[in-house]
Amino acid sequence: MSDRNRIIELIAGEDSFNLISHMLPDGDSIGSLLAMGRTLEKLGKNIQLFAPGRIPLKYRFLNRADLISPDDAAFDSSRPVFVLDSSDADRLGSFKEKVLASPKLINIDHHVTNQRYGTLNYVDPEASATGEIVFDILQALRIDLDFELAEALYVAISTDTGSFKYDNTTPHTHTVVARLLQTGVSPGVLSQKIFDERPLSFYILLKEALSSLEMYFNRTLAIMTISKDIRIRSGASTDDLDGIVNYTRNIEGVELGILFYVEQENEVKVGFRSKRLDVSVLAGKLNGGGHVRAAGCRMHGSFEAVKEKVLAESFLMLADLPTGGAN
Amino acid sequence: MSDRNRIIELIAGEDSFNLISHMLPDGDSIGSLLAMGRTLEKLGKNIQLFAPGRIPLKYRFLNRADLISPDDAAFDSSRPVFVLDSSDADRLGSFKEKVLASPKLINIDHHVTNQRYGTLNYVDPEASATGEIVFDILQALRIDLDFELAEALYVAISTDTGSFKYDNTTPHTHTVVARLLQTGVSPGVLSQKIFDERPLSFYILLKEALSSLEMYFNRTLAIMTISKDIRIRSGASTDDLDGIVNYTRNIEGVELGILFYVEQENEVKVGFRSKRLDVSVLAGKLNGGGHVRAAGCRMHGSFEAVKEKVLAESFLMLADLPTGGAN
Repeated sequence: MSDRNRIIELIAGEDSFNLISHMLPDGDSIGSLLAMGRTLEKLGKNIQLFAPGRIPLKYRFLNRADLISPDDAAFDSSRPVFVLDSSDADRLGSFKEKVLASPKLINIDHHVTNQRYGTLNYVDPEASATGEIVFDILQALRIDLDFELAEALYVAISTDTGSFKYDNTTPHTHTVVARLLQTGVSPGVLSQKIFDERPLSFYILLKEALSSLEMYFNRTLAIMTISKDIRIRSGASTDDLDGIVNYTRNIEGVELGILFYVEQENEVKVGFRSKRLDVSVLAGKLNGGGHVRAAGCRMHGSFEAVKEKVLAESFLMLADLPTGGAN
Repeated sequence: MSDRNRIIELIAGEDSFNLISHMLPDGDSIGSLLAMGRTLEKLGKNIQLFAPGRIPLKYRFLNRADLISPDDAAFDSSRPVFVLDSSDADRLGSFKEKVLASPKLINIDHHVTNQRYGTLNYVDPEASATGEIVFDILQALRIDLDFELAEALYVAISTDTGSFKYDNTTPHTHTVVARLLQTGVSPGVLSQKIFDERPLSFYILLKEALSSLEMYFNRTLAIMTISKDIRIRSGASTDDLDGIVNYTRNIEGVELGILFYVEQENEVKVGFRSKRLDVSVLAGKLNGGGHVRAAGCRMHGSFEAVKEKVLAESFLMLADLPTGGAN
């Protein structure tokens, strides 16, 4: 029996569910959480929504986003739990032990690195977003697609595909989104919220990041560096760092973009972006992980030592790249 | 008989065609021109491609983009002509008279303002891009969709929808793009070329622009200032200024964004961007013009005098804005 059918069977046999997604909630984790929750509600189930972390302001317009609880004390381990978009249980933060203690753990994800820690695992690395998998589940359950579901799933899929720009976007992705738009959701309204608008503090931080820009390896490697001090002085949140790292890749001729965020002495968060390189491999070598074109790791040691180590691995990778360029 | 069927009938009865699109070629005009040309070639027709203007660098990777001629002397008026994506004949520049002298003019467009100046007019304002209409034509002609056609049409549609972010994006748009991706075209490679990549000099200029950022009128007005000196020192081109001005508008809470470009003593180019305001009216008051959300003017006088005058008009406009915000 397929994973999907096992999940459908399990849903039919239970009345109440917890749902949770990963730390540092993003559009896909929040959108797929809300859509899976609403799907279960439409089947008459009791649900409770959790996330180990604050919901970023830009996603709070989503219906019921305010019902997502960050409180692990409220998590009842006797219920079956859906875990959305989380490649491993460590990404559940302080909820980890309680989630793993649940009698039935349904792990729904699209990360190729998923650790299959569930009692049921529905992992489809071909899906552009976990939201795309949730769409397939609700279709299989013959749930009527309404505006609220469509908004949540649109946010999930458009976030993880960079508005359909990344190569994880498939024909199926567009076919799903065609269905979502039929409910009347507005791509204009949603995209403005998700992508274009940023707080003033973001642009102050961007100025600082651009001032730190260094180019290496015949201008195929771009590096920006931000310290926690500078971030705080800019008034920017840690959410804003995600937007900054993309700028490294957007420079013409750059194959690998890196953002160093010096969080404290001897602790550096490193973000990788690429056009053709598989940066999940690079991050993996440094005990991190992520996607093919967007990955990261956390490293210990002085900034200079961390930077030297990352540069060495990066140069090895860039040296292997066939010439010809992405352009 | 439908416009589409009349066009199919006309194609069957002719051997040679000219094809042309509008001045200041963009992704949709170039993509729909190339795709319509290739469609006719696949039917065994002779074709010649024209555009009244230079093809921007970022679109020149498209197959046969180098065959598009800007030379009106080479245009043979005895052939039937396809005109793509041009709302009126004035947009054909120096080609206008020769195009209008053609015995058969097939006008294919999606602008609601189209003047229907053809002998056949296939105008569909519901289509997100002229490329979407060309897709429908080649489907009706049972043309096999190949990689080259799909790349051209992807560029056309993704450009005019801002990568599916604008509200002209419909379920049909996504259904068409699902088909395009089935040919193996890469949304990642194409989107990077169309949207994200900019030269290093652009980001150096952006840093300078962000350093000049001033906020007025309760942070609803954002102003950046660049001098010609700074632009040249950054290594940036005047094209790069277009990208910079958009940053003023993308700041949360900003209703009006302005870029002052001090071209020389006593000459200032002013760019306006807005979320809800009609900046074509604002630019008009200052002897400029443009679109509702993007306009500009050129002013004479000292920078200080120009800035005072622009601020005064801007404040009047912002004071009239209903509260509630664009968010």
